[in-house]
Amino acid sequence: MKKPSHGGNLIWGATLAGCSPSELVDFSASINPLGPPQSAIAAIQNSLGVLTTYPDPNYTQLCSTLGNWHQLPPEWILPGNGSAELLTWASRELSQLDATYLFTPAFGDYWRSLKAFNAQVHPILLSEAITPPNAARSGILINNPHNPTGKLFTKEALQKYLEEFALVVVDEAFMDFLPPEEEQSLLPLVTEYTNLVILRSLTKFYSLPGLRLGYAISHPKRLQNWQEWRDPWPVNVLAEQAAIAVIQDREFQQKTWNWLPPTRKELFEGLQAIPGLQPLQGAANFVLVKTAKPSSQLQTQLLTNHKILIRDCQSFPELGEVFFRVSVRTQPENQLLLQALTQCLLNTT
Amino acid sequence: MKKPSHGGNLIWGATLAGCSPSELVDFSASINPLGPPQSAIAAIQNSLGVLTTYPDPNYTQLCSTLGNWHQLPPEWILPGNGSAELLTWASRELSQLDATYLFTPAFGDYWRSLKAFNAQVHPILLSEAITPPNAARSGILINNPHNPTGKLFTKEALQKYLEEFALVVVDEAFMDFLPPEEEQSLLPLVTEYTNLVILRSLTKFYSLPGLRLGYAISHPKRLQNWQEWRDPWPVNVLAEQAAIAVIQDREFQQKTWNWLPPTRKELFEGLQAIPGLQPLQGAANFVLVKTAKPSSQLQTQLLTNHKILIRDCQSFPELGEVFFRVSVRTQPENQLLLQALTQCLLNTT
Repeated sequence: MKKPSHGGNLIWGATLAGCSPSELVDFSASINPLGPPQSAIAAIQNSLGVLTTYPDPNYTQLCSTLGNWHQLPPEWILPGNGSAELLTWASRELSQLDATYLFTPAFGDYWRSLKAFNAQVHPILLSEAITPPNAARSGILINNPHNPTGKLFTKEALQKYLEEFALVVVDEAFMDFLPPEEEQSLLPLVTEYTNLVILRSLTKFYSLPGLRLGYAISHPKRLQNWQEWRDPWPVNVLAEQAAIAVIQDREFQQKTWNWLPPTRKELFEGLQAIPGLQPLQGAANFVLVKTAKPSSQLQTQLLTNHKILIRDCQSFPELGEVFFRVSVRTQPENQLLLQALTQCLLNTT
Repeated sequence: MKKPSHGGNLIWGATLAGCSPSELVDFSASINPLGPPQSAIAAIQNSLGVLTTYPDPNYTQLCSTLGNWHQLPPEWILPGNGSAELLTWASRELSQLDATYLFTPAFGDYWRSLKAFNAQVHPILLSEAITPPNAARSGILINNPHNPTGKLFTKEALQKYLEEFALVVVDEAFMDFLPPEEEQSLLPLVTEYTNLVILRSLTKFYSLPGLRLGYAISHPKRLQNWQEWRDPWPVNVLAEQAAIAVIQDREFQQKTWNWLPPTRKELFEGLQAIPGLQPLQGAANFVLVKTAKPSSQLQTQLLTNHKILIRDCQSFPELGEVFFRVSVRTQPENQLLLQALTQCLLNTT
């Protein structure tokens, strides 16, 4: 079986582990382990009766719920079939510029979407200062917090790019994992800068990657263009209703914000204590780990001996065999991972 | 409230009728009134537990089920988020040719998708013979049966285009409504002609437009390109599992094939008997009707007096006010429509 280049392919892992996908403990996809919230499941079950009608092509109710949440008029919001769908259209727009700057290591789907429209990509190392000669005719695609390092850019650092670049696309797929007072979202700047696009995902925080749901926030004129590029009904009615429910689920949100910081800290310290591993401090619900043992070897051992799937970093060519990524899961699951990693690192075969 | 240019917008109709969308009898969207099959609902309910995992990016199980159904290897099939999503990529490919020929009146989303990639569109009347001077560098986009007329092209008539044109895209969104022995699908020719793309929908026959599900059938190399243009997970897990279930639901299929021909015949004859109306013979689950009374007036009267929504043909500019389209619904619903139309046509205000 071909190993998929994207993460989250449980079928591949399960085949190697010799078990069913549901028996694996999946640390490879950065999904909130507390979800999905009951409010999402209830909304889906209550909507089975409306499958016989097309979605509202304007997604009026969803846009207005999201608008209330972000204190923006609804026309500044465009829902999509996962933020990956909206990334496709952002990349189409970036490709019309002279160049697109991209911090590396970069999420694999950024390469896919930019290549799809023959964008001129200029990779730059995350650590590098960036002052391109032709910023006024260039775009930049950033994720914040950054995947896979977890690095959080400050709002001020990114605002500088808004002044320089023709188009700034900020993928905030993991921003909602930060408690509101720690967020560095560019949302408050979106009405001020017409060259800003923010991409958001609802599938990671609310544990609904199988449902596909994201949205873009930008100037209404840009979003109208995108709407005419794509099919009229990209979000199905079940995802639409689940989204409306979860955005208003304050209890689930608070539970997640209470869970993440102490659990990540404990996992981080546990990883740090294992000889041969060196975790990087990050702001998201995953941890990038430098490893003395090649990550693909580690991945195979964890699968076959422990039914645990970690994310090797093959889809981030700059990281190669020296890094792996794990999501933060529940405290007991994280302990299982730490024990399994300890065994793998002590075992020298 | 702005009237949507696409059909199937129940919210607009319900606002005008002063009722909730579920109280309307919807003849505007061409959806099978017998569905959705129980097998689809059961498959969705059984899949709520896997929403926490990403869809299999290869859609292995779905492609192999569809492959068995059509007697094709799975790599000749690409599932999409409704056939409208796949139309977008077909149109991108058509736009790379010198010209795209399009029979008019044409489904509104064809114009949208071709315009999205600046295709050179050459409209041709459905009744015209077509022998373009540069067919070898041109494409053609056809739906069969044709929407909104219901006209069925024979396989032989379309095979001629396969010999002439660089790319032939046949949208067979309504072909499954024909009993197998009457189908004029180009499926048997797909492995023979690398310039053929067939688009199929599962949402119309199985009454799941809210779920979004379609697929393309073409040469694996072309479908791989499309897969790299778009996001990796366009079909959500609920739609995937519902599709796998309904394709194997022989009972629902047979029930639909038993229902349509006599019910359409009765509706057709009922329409024919109303002074001022002239229905067109067609092969699909809808009927195009020529009307002496302007169709937008008729639409408003049916909404306000009868809570019935018909499809005016404003999105087909060639048809204007002289035509409307109705889907074939259950026998009692069709009778309601005929009575209401009779009243509207006799009432001269």
